[in-house]
Amino acid sequence: MTKVNYEIVKHIGVLSESKTGWTKEINLVSWNNRDPKYDIRDWAPEHEKMGKGITLSKEEVQILIDILNENKPE
Amino acid sequence: MTKVNYEIVKHIGVLSESKTGWTKEINLVSWNNRDPKYDIRDWAPEHEKMGKGITLSKEEVQILIDILNENKPE
Repeated sequence: MTKVNYEIVKHIGVLSESKTGWTKEINLVSWNNRDPKYDIRDWAPEHEKMGKGITLSKEEVQILIDILNENKPE
Repeated sequence: MTKVNYEIVKHIGVLSESKTGWTKEINLVSWNNRDPKYDIRDWAPEHEKMGKGITLSKEEVQILIDILNENKPE
């Protein structure tokens, strides 16, 4: 495994919490000291471990907002 | 690798396209014939291969919409 250096620059919000205490969150995360990106990911309590997730650019988030507002779950 | 059975039930939208033709999309995807979930993921052209991504429940998407509308990128 490659060591990944990251910093949670801003905690934006929590989408859900599992029975094990892991949370699905959206945050601004800087990877390897690069500019922070939006990041939707599972985290262990205290952010001790990270699970699977995706990163999104600002532009992708803006498009996602428009798409979701037009396709809200019923 | 475990064989995963999936069906893209509804194409909701495309967030971006890379130079290689892969697209980052949000779709409704049914995994192993279960109820469809929201899915943000990279896909190869023609959805021939899938990349990393996350699935979100309806409730998680509703919370995500609220969070993003209150935290729009500048």
